[in-house]
This record gives sequence, C-alpha cells and structure tokens, in this order.
Amino acid sequence: MNYDWHERYANRMKGMSSSAIRELLKLSQQPDVISFAGGLPAPELFPLEAFERATQRVLQTEGKIALQYGTTEGYEPLREFIVSKMGRYGINVTTDNILITSGSQQALDILGKIFIESGDRIITEQPTYLGAIQAWRSYQAQFVSVSTDQEGIRTSELTELVATQPKFMYILPNFQNPSGVTLPLGRRWEIVTLADSNDIPIIEDDPYGELRFEGEHEPPLVVLDARKLKSVNKNGRSLTQGNVIYLSTFSKTLAPGLRLGWMVAPKEVIQRCVMAKQGMDLHTSTFVQHVAYELIKDGFLKNHIQHIRQVYRKRRDVMLNAMETYFPMEVEWTRPQGGLFLWVTLPPQMDASLILETAVANKVAFVPGAAFYPHNQVHNCFRLNFTNAKPVHIEEGIKRLGKVLAFENQKFADFSYA
Amino acid sequence: MNYDWHERYANRMKGMSSSAIRELLKLSQQPDVISFAGGLPAPELFPLEAFERATQRVLQTEGKIALQYGTTEGYEPLREFIVSKMGRYGINVTTDNILITSGSQQALDILGKIFIESGDRIITEQPTYLGAIQAWRSYQAQFVSVSTDQEGIRTSELTELVATQPKFMYILPNFQNPSGVTLPLGRRWEIVTLADSNDIPIIEDDPYGELRFEGEHEPPLVVLDARKLKSVNKNGRSLTQGNVIYLSTFSKTLAPGLRLGWMVAPKEVIQRCVMAKQGMDLHTSTFVQHVAYELIKDGFLKNHIQHIRQVYRKRRDVMLNAMETYFPMEVEWTRPQGGLFLWVTLPPQMDASLILETAVANKVAFVPGAAFYPHNQVHNCFRLNFTNAKPVHIEEGIKRLGKVLAFENQKFADFSYA
Repeated sequence: MNYDWHERYANRMKGMSSSAIRELLKLSQQPDVISFAGGLPAPELFPLEAFERATQRVLQTEGKIALQYGTTEGYEPLREFIVSKMGRYGINVTTDNILITSGSQQALDILGKIFIESGDRIITEQPTYLGAIQAWRSYQAQFVSVSTDQEGIRTSELTELVATQPKFMYILPNFQNPSGVTLPLGRRWEIVTLADSNDIPIIEDDPYGELRFEGEHEPPLVVLDARKLKSVNKNGRSLTQGNVIYLSTFSKTLAPGLRLGWMVAPKEVIQRCVMAKQGMDLHTSTFVQHVAYELIKDGFLKNHIQHIRQVYRKRRDVMLNAMETYFPMEVEWTRPQGGLFLWVTLPPQMDASLILETAVANKVAFVPGAAFYPHNQVHNCFRLNFTNAKPVHIEEGIKRLGKVLAFENQKFADFSYA
Repeated sequence: MNYDWHERYANRMKGMSSSAIRELLKLSQQPDVISFAGGLPAPELFPLEAFERATQRVLQTEGKIALQYGTTEGYEPLREFIVSKMGRYGINVTTDNILITSGSQQALDILGKIFIESGDRIITEQPTYLGAIQAWRSYQAQFVSVSTDQEGIRTSELTELVATQPKFMYILPNFQNPSGVTLPLGRRWEIVTLADSNDIPIIEDDPYGELRFEGEHEPPLVVLDARKLKSVNKNGRSLTQGNVIYLSTFSKTLAPGLRLGWMVAPKEVIQRCVMAKQGMDLHTSTFVQHVAYELIKDGFLKNHIQHIRQVYRKRRDVMLNAMETYFPMEVEWTRPQGGLFLWVTLPPQMDASLILETAVANKVAFVPGAAFYPHNQVHNCFRLNFTNAKPVHIEEGIKRLGKVLAFENQKFADFSYA
C-alpha cells in the first residue's frame, strides 16, 4: 500500500497545474525542432567573457563576502546601481524603495503572499503573463481579465471593473508577454488616473522596457503616478507614497540563468516584502548579485543592450517578413516595437493547441494562447518568440509553420464548402 | 495624505514580523563586536580558488547553457550527484526524488505552500529553527511544540500529540539549530514508528549532518523509515513510498551565498513541489548550479568537509573551555558533537533579551532563545555560534560574555539576599 499524499495537500494546490510552457519546452527541445515556444533570450549574446572577468574579480577581491549570507533586501551597491538606473527613467527613489528578488517571478510570488487573500479579485490584461497567473493562483486569487487590442488593455472596459474594488491591477505596459503590444501614453494616463481615483494599487511588470527597437520610449506608469501626485499636491507627495509597484529584471539584458530581478515600491511595502522573503529564501544569491554588479557597474549595460536591440530587431523583421510570405491571408498578428514576442490570431474556428501537434510533427513549435488566459477561454491564438532562433532558422521555421497553418485553414475551408 | 497600504495586506501578514536574528545581525555587525549571533560558516574556509577555476570552466565550456533558463527540477548532473551522495547515507533514490531549491529555506516555503492549510497543526521541537517558524507562519500554521532534552525531542511527549493528526512533524536530528543536540538511534526509531503508525509525514531537516566532529553517524529518519518499510513488506515497498521528506543544503559545506539546497521526497511530492516552485522563482539559478556541480563533481567535497570539521571542532573546544572558565556556575549549556551552535540555559529568573543589551554594550552578541520558540515563551536561554569567529576572538568574546552573565547573575543574587 502506498502512502497516500493526495489527501494531505492544501486546497490551494487544486488550482495548480504544470505550466503549459514548461511541458512544451520539453517537447520542443528535440534538436531538429525550430522552437518559437520558449521565452528565451539569444544565448549567443550572453557576455561570457565579461562574466568571466567579473567573477574572477569578485572571488579575488571580495570572495568571503560574496559567498557568505547577505541581507534580505539585497547587495547594497547593486541596489544603489538600480536606484540610479531607475532615475534615468524618471523613477526617483532611494535604496529603501528597492528589493532584489530571485527573478521577477519571485517578486510576483512575494506580492501574492503579502496582498492576496483567498477570493481576492485581480485585474489583468487578457492575455497576460502566465507566470503571474501561476503565482497568484496559489494564493487563490480570482482573475478578472480585460480584453486588449493593438494598443494594449482596453481602458474603456476598465472603468467599471475598477469600481468593484479589486485587490490590484497587473499591467505589462511594454511589448507585453505574450501579445507584444505596447500601451500608448494616453491609455497609461487613463490607467493611472483610474487607479488613483479608485485607490487601486497597480503592479507594473516591465521586463522588456529596455528592449525597444524603434519609436519613442513611453514613461512607466510609476512615473506618471508620481507626476500626478505632484500636480495634485504642490507640497510634493513623493513617489514613495504612490500606489504603483514596479518590477523589472536582468533576465533579458544580462542572462536569465542568474535569476536576478528587482522591485521598486513604497518603503513600507518593501519592508513587508522583506519579511515575507526572509521566510521564502532568506535572500537572493549574494554570489550572483556581486557578479552582476561587478559586471555592470562601469557602464557595461548601455552598449550591451544596444547590441541586443540590433540583433533582436533584425530577428523580428525576419519573422514578420517571413510571416507575410508564408502565412495564409486569414491569419493576423501583432507587430511589436520591441521585446521578445509576437501574437498570432487565427480564424475563430481554429484551435492552436490542436495545431501545435501538427506543428511539432513538422518540426516547429509555439505556445498555444490558451495558457495566457486565466480560464483558458481563447483557443485561436498563439505566441511566437523571435529572439532565440537565428534568422535562417526563423525563416525556415515560419515557412514550416505557414504550411501547417495553410493546411489546417484549408481543412476548414473545405469543410465550409462541403 | 499617504496611500494607505495597511488595510490591503493579506491576513497571513499579521503573524509575520522581522526576524530577531536578522535585526541582531545588523546590531552585531559593528566591527568591534564579537558576534556569536549569526548562523554563519567561517568565510576563511570558502574554497575561493576552486570556485574561480570552476566558474571559469563553466563559462568557457557551457556558458550559454549555464546562463540560460533551466528546468524547475534543477540541473540534471547536479541531481545525479545528489542521488549518489544520498546513496552513501543509505538513502536510495533516483533523480525523480530530487528537487534543487534556492537554499533549504525555500524547501520549507515550498512544503508550506503545498501542505499547510490555515490552522493546520505542525509538530516541532522546542526550541526549533526560526526560519521554519517564519516560513510556515505565513501559511497560518499552528505550532505544537514538544520539549527537548540533551537527546533532542522527548518522544514520550510525542505519542499523545501524534494521535491528534497534525499535518506533519518537523525534526532536525543532527546538531539541531539552535540547541546543538543530536537524536540518538533509539529515539529516531521511536519517531519513525510513531509517524508511520499514525500516518504522519516527517520533514527531516539536515543541514549539518556532515559536520560531525566525533562519535558515530546516526542514520537519517528517512533511512530508518525505508528499513521499516522493508521489514513490514518483504516485497520491498521502496523509500519513494515512505512518509519522510529529507532536506539538506550546500550552505554549510560549500557556501551559503550560493543559496543552494535540495529536497529528497517521493516522486509525486516532488512533482507537486515543482508546480509550486514554478510560480515562486521558475528555477534556482542555473549559473550557481553549474558552478557548484563543476566544483564538486570530482570528489572535492570529501576533503573539504574533513577540513571544515577539524577547524570547527577546534573552535567548539575553545568555546566550551572558555565557558568552563568564565561562565558563572549557575549557567548550563549543551556540548554538541558537530554543527555550528550550542545552547545556553540561564537561571529561570534571567531574561536573555535584556542581557543582550548589556552584552552588546560590552561588545559581544548572541541570539536570545525566545526567537526559537513559536510563542516566544522561554526567556532564559540563548544560542551561541562557534564557527564564525576565530579561536582568539572566541576566547575573548566568551570572557566578555562571562563578565556580563556574572554581573547579571549577581544582581539577582543580591536581590534575593536583600
């Protein structure tokens, strides 16, 4: 007789299932599959030699500190670096407003832990980042999804929902995962105003903001919120009294294997997060924090990000051009100005999950869109990553995928003529 | 008007407060304070050059993989290494039974997430590891503490409690944090038998097991459980069907700054933990996992641990001898056979938290015992770490502390004569 673990799990486990992305990553790891599935940066851009030099310097000059326990808040010089980095985006904070996290994913988990009561309603874009759904489902949140168009979340639909007192709103303003779309300035102002007048916190997740290939950088919600505060109160209610919590990461600019992200929030929220994080992993790896800081402290990031942007821009263009050539007329897609992803919409009768099987049989992979909807309610969309494959493979993969889509689309066409 | 975050926090935050250890670490970080407070390994033993070589090899030969996203379960070769390491302790498992965690602390958080329902009762030793209290309080667990003596948890008190169906038992069998005591074989058998006959899972936390300075290694609970299963069922019900979950870490043998631990559990528990961990940090740093594996794969650990044991044994002896010399007669303490800590018991009228203030004024620090009790109910104890300070400082620190204790003890003596 086996020991029965099943009846011992907490209720919150009932909502959890293994990530679709994760299972698909396994599937698409066969070497002859061209995978647009993972949210992976291009590994050939990882600055390996710079990492080697930085690691050497850290171990030779401060190894005893870099390998010892550290504070939960994070390595102080790295937090100072982030303060000045944030300053360049117009986000004026001090180290008291910064928490280093084990990737942005951990920031989502921490925020779930400190804020979400079972049954709390969270407003999200639809589709939205599936890691946020996973993190917050474990705190038994209810997801209230707002539909999106080419300019992101439809603010017209938001007004009514905000009045129902959700716990917070979750917004990815730049090159959103999975859709690739970016909120224009007008909608940003609307969101901040709505949140402020209804006293609803905003969690602004910005992993890709620095990876803009073209067009103007739009100010983060946290900056608009601070400006709004100033205009409301001439005595200068500062950002630290605002209601926007901002998240970002080094995963897309340095390397995801570090698991290194950060949160910007009012001091008292950071203090709560520190208490929660103590019980979660004590602190993020000091070794990783010291190495990352050593690598970037003297201005390395600026040129490196410039290089990433050029490479990714080209890959996006190759993918968009190939899609024009090979995809059936009935298929639509977004044209992101940056980031890692674009979003494909099929005719409504088509199911991306079923098509994935044919696609993988034809040695190409993507992520079916349903995973990005809290209730898996949309089936005719999928996400493509354009940063992980080289241009020649992007061209070939899209060609393969185009054939699969044409074949599947034809089936429905045949059927409708029948 | 400030934005009011206060009423937005989830109820689970009410039980959370900043760690006493953490605040004390700050206090005792002044350079002239001899601190026995932190749970810190000796940084002069960190194998810095070996780390440098390992990092170099990783970045030169597999950098693109070591810095990319990885699987939630952990780096496969590292999991295989742990399988064979566990095998040497008599724990027979496969990689399906291993999850790499961001320190043992994360394993505690994951187990809390998958198992603990608000109000669930958890049996712990008293005193117990305060990080476990912190982790599980955030899931609103109720702690049922069982008193301990020089041989660990009093199994006689356990019988009745186990029958009340707690969610699980949490046991640190070797050189317990904070008390330094070790469970003898007889009590281990009693615990495993009680757990088995009442169908109660055991979480066995073993961060210090390899740091034994003298005496015989006692088999882990997970091994006894497996033996018991075999004796019950000759067809060989294997370990993976047992009810013990085993945790350990590289924090005390390599370096805590890596944040690298592991869990050994039945496959289906590991699968649940993987689902939970996905939403918590996606995975533990691949960079750290690759570097650690590269460092230890060729037998490095055995000699290195041997060296750590010698150094720590000497420091323990210096501390115990100094305590004999400088501590008042009325004070008692444990004599650990390994690990990092020993535990001091003062006369019942003395309060270690109050004494700490005098101690820090006299440039020596420790952790008052109350932090290690879920309800802070015991005040006349404190924890001393004997591994972080060098022998000359241990001697001097204990001398300072002895004066403080003599002074405080005298106050009560004077008072009672008055």
